[in-house]
Amino acid sequence: MHNNLLVLQSDFGLVDGAVSAMIGVALQEDRQLQIHHLTHDITPYNIFEASYRLFQTVNYWPEGTTFVSVVDPGVGSKRKSVVALTENNQYIVTPDNGTLSYIKKHIGIKAIREISEVKNRLKNTELSYTFHGRDVYAYTGAKLASGHITFEEVGPELSVDAIVEVPVVNTVIEDDVIRGVIDILDVRFGSLWTSITREEFHHFKPEFSDRFEVTIYNNDMLVYQNQVTYGKSFADVRIGQPIIYINSLYRVGLAINQGSFAKAYNVGVGQNWHLEIKKI
Amino acid sequence: MHNNLLVLQSDFGLVDGAVSAMIGVALQEDRQLQIHHLTHDITPYNIFEASYRLFQTVNYWPEGTTFVSVVDPGVGSKRKSVVALTENNQYIVTPDNGTLSYIKKHIGIKAIREISEVKNRLKNTELSYTFHGRDVYAYTGAKLASGHITFEEVGPELSVDAIVEVPVVNTVIEDDVIRGVIDILDVRFGSLWTSITREEFHHFKPEFSDRFEVTIYNNDMLVYQNQVTYGKSFADVRIGQPIIYINSLYRVGLAINQGSFAKAYNVGVGQNWHLEIKKI
Amino acid sequence: MHNNLLVLQSDFGLVDGAVSAMIGVALQEDRQLQIHHLTHDITPYNIFEASYRLFQTVNYWPEGTTFVSVVDPGVGSKRKSVVALTENNQYIVTPDNGTLSYIKKHIGIKAIREISEVKNRLKNTELSYTFHGRDVYAYTGAKLASGHITFEEVGPELSVDAIVEVPVVNTVIEDDVIRGVIDILDVRFGSLWTSITREEFHHFKPEFSDRFEVTIYNNDMLVYQNQVTYGKSFADVRIGQPIIYINSLYRVGLAINQGSFAKAYNVGVGQNWHLEIKKI
Repeated sequence: MHNNLLVLQSDFGLVDGAVSAMIGVALQEDRQLQIHHLTHDITPYNIFEASYRLFQTVNYWPEGTTFVSVVDPGVGSKRKSVVALTENNQYIVTPDNGTLSYIKKHIGIKAIREISEVKNRLKNTELSYTFHGRDVYAYTGAKLASGHITFEEVGPELSVDAIVEVPVVNTVIEDDVIRGVIDILDVRFGSLWTSITREEFHHFKPEFSDRFEVTIYNNDMLVYQNQVTYGKSFADVRIGQPIIYINSLYRVGLAINQGSFAKAYNVGVGQNWHLEIKKI
Repeated sequence: MHNNLLVLQSDFGLVDGAVSAMIGVALQEDRQLQIHHLTHDITPYNIFEASYRLFQTVNYWPEGTTFVSVVDPGVGSKRKSVVALTENNQYIVTPDNGTLSYIKKHIGIKAIREISEVKNRLKNTELSYTFHGRDVYAYTGAKLASGHITFEEVGPELSVDAIVEVPVVNTVIEDDVIRGVIDILDVRFGSLWTSITREEFHHFKPEFSDRFEVTIYNNDMLVYQNQVTYGKSFADVRIGQPIIYINSLYRVGLAINQGSFAKAYNVGVGQNWHLEIKKI
Repeated sequence: MHNNLLVLQSDFGLVDGAVSAMIGVALQEDRQLQIHHLTHDITPYNIFEASYRLFQTVNYWPEGTTFVSVVDPGVGSKRKSVVALTENNQYIVTPDNGTLSYIKKHIGIKAIREISEVKNRLKNTELSYTFHGRDVYAYTGAKLASGHITFEEVGPELSVDAIVEVPVVNTVIEDDVIRGVIDILDVRFGSLWTSITREEFHHFKPEFSDRFEVTIYNNDMLVYQNQVTYGKSFADVRIGQPIIYINSLYRVGLAINQGSFAKAYNVGVGQNWHLEIKKI
């Protein structure tokens, strides 16, 4: 099922040699691998973000692609190293620390295997305990992506039910209000991406240029409350105006045309950032 | 004319999954594509910068290369999506919003076609209005770069004369003074790159180690005035000294040896930043 | 000996078109080259960092790989442009300004040749004096990596003894104390990487969970003094606790589990940052 495509993600940044060492290790395994990058700028230790960025991306890659995701605050602890085989026939090589949450929920996981570090560890790194990204994950990912090992040869099968998951908030729909959370930012532009899907939002049977009351709380503290126009894209409102829209993952987004919603109103992300959309 | 090389530029940054989704879409179109990057750190919405970085780069790439540039503040508005065929036989896939200005002026455009979004849009993205980078530009770029469509199959031809252009300031040469603007920074080192070409500067018949009076205005406000030595390269003046030199695009540059001219004197870029060079 | 792999490093950043121009130049030389990146975020002009990042990485790449490293504050001065052939049979193309120090000391250099810029310079760049990264280094690196020139054809041989080196501090071992310096950071996580090797530290016959007194001076000024546990990996101490460990290059590191040691205690890097480890 391998297709020689290997895609790397981490919270290592690109400022030092860590990612380059991972690429080198993979190419030592097989010179024919095509290596690309998701992002290496995951906020350090932020497992939820790693999970979300995989979910945001994997569907746009060919079947058979192998992803390696290393956000690993527990490196050297008892957390397991695993490979997931997804419903869309891709591999994800990662510590089992919650990184697979979004993939499991929204894409589906067929099977999962624990990496046997005796067989699948780079030679001469037995005394290296802090860089599994290089010594175990890139190495195992390269073996899978190149077909040098099969999924079965990764190691013993685990139960998909037992995958470590970060809690995910479900949308609440009442007659005239929908409640969700702010999952993540479209970082560069400061737009908010919420947990509310297009289908859930369509409960309102919205039409472009309808207006909604949007309220944002940080825990119980009111952070933002205003009427916002629903549009197709940013240019549907004037520069500097807020807009509610369906983003490229078919979820509700909130933006300011050519501005940053997150900066304008000091909005953060995560499960404490609640959002309410009300029909006017 | 395609050569399987696809080069991506945007203002998306590399912090989230946007660029990775574009790469994946292109590889789904053709696994043989070689994908590289110009930069994804264009200042958000800065069309002039996008235009300049293309101009700075395309000549160093092989004939037949396809560039995709997505700085697209008007995504979802009526601005056109186009492909330009340049005089040096490369393709540039971009919104027609000024991004082609520098290419048109300094390299030349043979023909331009509007992307027919019905034919050249990624399947199942018809309800996605905010990520043409993935759904239209990367997809069309991949089709062209791989030869799956011809230039003619992009869509209807437009007039090259009608390309949207950002205004470009022409150099003024008088007897003992040359006037231009500060186009852009050599960002990492804080050197100023001006609009004055090597040929224009040669009006002075300059010799290395000649000195010139350099004056910089922000609109009408004097920001910098000093005598500066003309040198071949930074090391021709002492560390911390300013130098006037011909940069790697054969335009006049201003730098401080191992320092940042832009930071030292708070100099910005754009058409309001005027520069005067006087023979002493 | 070439293997078509070309790896680029610089202090140019990825914000403008400089690196992309280098890639294009290399691909014009040979379309079969596989081009990857070490990092382009070396602190501007920091030769020591460039040297260290090469040392950190090259061993993980296949034999025959060609590295191009351009941190070149002396561009345009009399400093030489060279290619080193290392003991592990890789090429490093670089200005001879100290960048080869760590490679020479820890990996070994078999031979070194000066780049003959008449033969090995990109056509039509004879009047460009400030971008050897594009005009000389990427171009020569591409010729070597593709086998279009042999090592001998680079130019005249120089003496390995005459390579410019930045001073490197040797570890001092006394009965109950080991002294070294803080070489560099694991940037993203703020961990300190010291000059003390695993072997040197084993003078203490340390066991995991032993405690040591760690003292850090900036020149003669005391910056940090505390007892620190020796562990295998970060998760061996509680979140927020300091740990002394062996890093992925088999040198002594100092970290805070899920925190930044460098930020917590304002610790910098370089030869003025002394470190003392004492057995308790």
